[in-house]
Amino acid sequence: MSRKILVLPGDGIGPEITREAVKVLEACQQQGLDIVIEEGLVGGAGYDAHGEPLPTATLERAKASDAILLGAVGGPKWDRLEDLTKRPEKGLLGLRKHLGLFGNLRPAILYPQLAEASSLKPEVVSGLDIMIVRELTGGIYFGQPRGIEERDGERVGFNTYVYSESEIERIGRVAFEMARKRGKKLCSVDKANVLEVTILWREVMERLALEYPDVELSHMYVDNAAMQLVRAPKQFDVIVTGNMFGDILSDAAAMLTGSIGMLPSASLNESGQGMYEPCHGSAPDIAGQNLANPLATILSVAMMLRYSLDQPELAARIEGAVGKVLDDGLRTADIAYPGTRRVTTAEMGDAVLTAF
Amino acid sequence: MSRKILVLPGDGIGPEITREAVKVLEACQQQGLDIVIEEGLVGGAGYDAHGEPLPTATLERAKASDAILLGAVGGPKWDRLEDLTKRPEKGLLGLRKHLGLFGNLRPAILYPQLAEASSLKPEVVSGLDIMIVRELTGGIYFGQPRGIEERDGERVGFNTYVYSESEIERIGRVAFEMARKRGKKLCSVDKANVLEVTILWREVMERLALEYPDVELSHMYVDNAAMQLVRAPKQFDVIVTGNMFGDILSDAAAMLTGSIGMLPSASLNESGQGMYEPCHGSAPDIAGQNLANPLATILSVAMMLRYSLDQPELAARIEGAVGKVLDDGLRTADIAYPGTRRVTTAEMGDAVLTAF
Ligand SMILES: CC(C)[C@H](C(=O)O)[C@@H](O)C(=O)O
Ligand SMILES: CC(C)[C@H](C(=O)O)[C@@H](O)C(=O)O
Repeated sequence: MSRKILVLPGDGIGPEITREAVKVLEACQQQGLDIVIEEGLVGGAGYDAHGEPLPTATLERAKASDAILLGAVGGPKWDRLEDLTKRPEKGLLGLRKHLGLFGNLRPAILYPQLAEASSLKPEVVSGLDIMIVRELTGGIYFGQPRGIEERDGERVGFNTYVYSESEIERIGRVAFEMARKRGKKLCSVDKANVLEVTILWREVMERLALEYPDVELSHMYVDNAAMQLVRAPKQFDVIVTGNMFGDILSDAAAMLTGSIGMLPSASLNESGQGMYEPCHGSAPDIAGQNLANPLATILSVAMMLRYSLDQPELAARIEGAVGKVLDDGLRTADIAYPGTRRVTTAEMGDAVLTAF
Repeated sequence: MSRKILVLPGDGIGPEITREAVKVLEACQQQGLDIVIEEGLVGGAGYDAHGEPLPTATLERAKASDAILLGAVGGPKWDRLEDLTKRPEKGLLGLRKHLGLFGNLRPAILYPQLAEASSLKPEVVSGLDIMIVRELTGGIYFGQPRGIEERDGERVGFNTYVYSESEIERIGRVAFEMARKRGKKLCSVDKANVLEVTILWREVMERLALEYPDVELSHMYVDNAAMQLVRAPKQFDVIVTGNMFGDILSDAAAMLTGSIGMLPSASLNESGQGMYEPCHGSAPDIAGQNLANPLATILSVAMMLRYSLDQPELAARIEGAVGKVLDDGLRTADIAYPGTRRVTTAEMGDAVLTAF
């Protein structure tokens, strides 16, 4: 039976970059990959069309799909929406929650062809290859109670940072398994010297470590982790952390490479269904100008093939094709420097297709 | 009447570095500064002596003092304490809370003499001068309810991220005033696309901005702020944010300079009483070896003179003396590189004293 892929272009540069990634998916189809590709609306695009960042039709289609390819959501157009539940981001958060996509994999890899793009010294980042495993459906993003209310004559805002043992264990296993397949080093990031919820986090990680004697587990406070990422990022192999810390650290780690336009991500649930998206945002300032870098989205397709469609060879071919166009000196604006060839979004997609 | 200074050496390298800073304070005394210097126990040192990280005698003395100089707290010796309320960190948090030290000023300055120490490219960080204003007595650090409890047959950990309008306004004013005295640019960091408490934060900052038309206010999501600090830190002048985000971002910002051993901090309450401490930690691995860099603590004395004792000239003299020893090529191990003169903790303190 055909596998179903749902493409959700979203907002800003989303439509342009997913367009190129879909070309690559179609090329896989021509190579015999049995998939059906559908499209849907999410984020600001969903709100504009149906008054909801996650229209019911999109959610239903997402649930029925084997994998989702998402562009990006959000933009200034919707930033002033009074009703927070209508903001584009809620479309993304709703998909994560409704599909149970708790395991977020965010690689931070420095492509040797792009070493110059980093703001860090070459010796500090050359060969960088970190995998951040972020919990994506719990923590303070979804904790109850939350809100803004009147107390003692003034307004008070509040959110709840909460994790249960089973939630921690579930993401812990993803991280230990990942470390096992890589350099066998796992660093769990918490703030156990201040926050009770992360004391429990640390305890569960230690318990899990007994089941993974081949993986070396360490713990780091989040403030120190932010420092160590800047100071000596190559000390890390796999990092596991909660939703909020993961949001911050994965973006910092991505930026260490200087080319966040290159970094894909995967968000998986217990049954291997996954949502795949670039790490970068919707970049409204360059939307619609054929300037955006489609490579992170194309590499997200490679992750999809590997994690949800069990096609590691096709995944490797896509990654190889991306390496080839970089070797050939093709660069979108975000990764261009003197001596390379500046190309548009569509030209970059076509070049990958040719190299595929 | 004499002003009272309470010195709390704390743990790890705390005693060594405060010793050098006290020499500088005493030099100020000899120049006519009317102060009385007392000492007290806090952190692991407090726990070991009195079973409490913040002994009652220390708290009483702290309340009666005009300013506190703190070394550092914590270390592996106390990391396994079952009772979280006895951990060294609780001594520090208790002082902040009991004295109402809500306004934490953390400069991230790149000393031109130490430009090589940064892991970032020189052009990215040269001339860096950011001031991070972190709220220090609220947010998730102190929010109730908090704990670990049994729910539906498993344990759950939880903390509460909470701010009231008046808490936000109070730290906002500190930041706007600071920006007014500096480059007139204030960036407020939040996660208003996800967390209600930071929606209120953003709203209060916008309201305050009307009172400070000369200061340009911008907003940034915390994940983006972590990226921008790595990508182009010089875009920032003053950053204001909550307790947890401030913990993470100020450490990342400090590490951009490559010489966290140089960075002081101040924590102020409404009446100008303040606690001053280096940004770095207790570094148990090098404690007692006369290796630690005392300059951050000495520069914390300069901040004390400026913010709590109204002695800007003495403050400038200390800062000048530190600049002079750096110009002379003196370096503790953490900031040493070929061609400079390696000195011990005590030698560095003495050199500052000579240059004072
Ligand atoms: C858009 C936003 C809600 C989202 C998040 O905070 O998770 C984004 O920053 C991300 O990391 O995917
Ligand atoms: C020691 C710890 C409790 C403290 C904090 O998290 O505030 C430290 O990291 C700091 O930034 O001063």
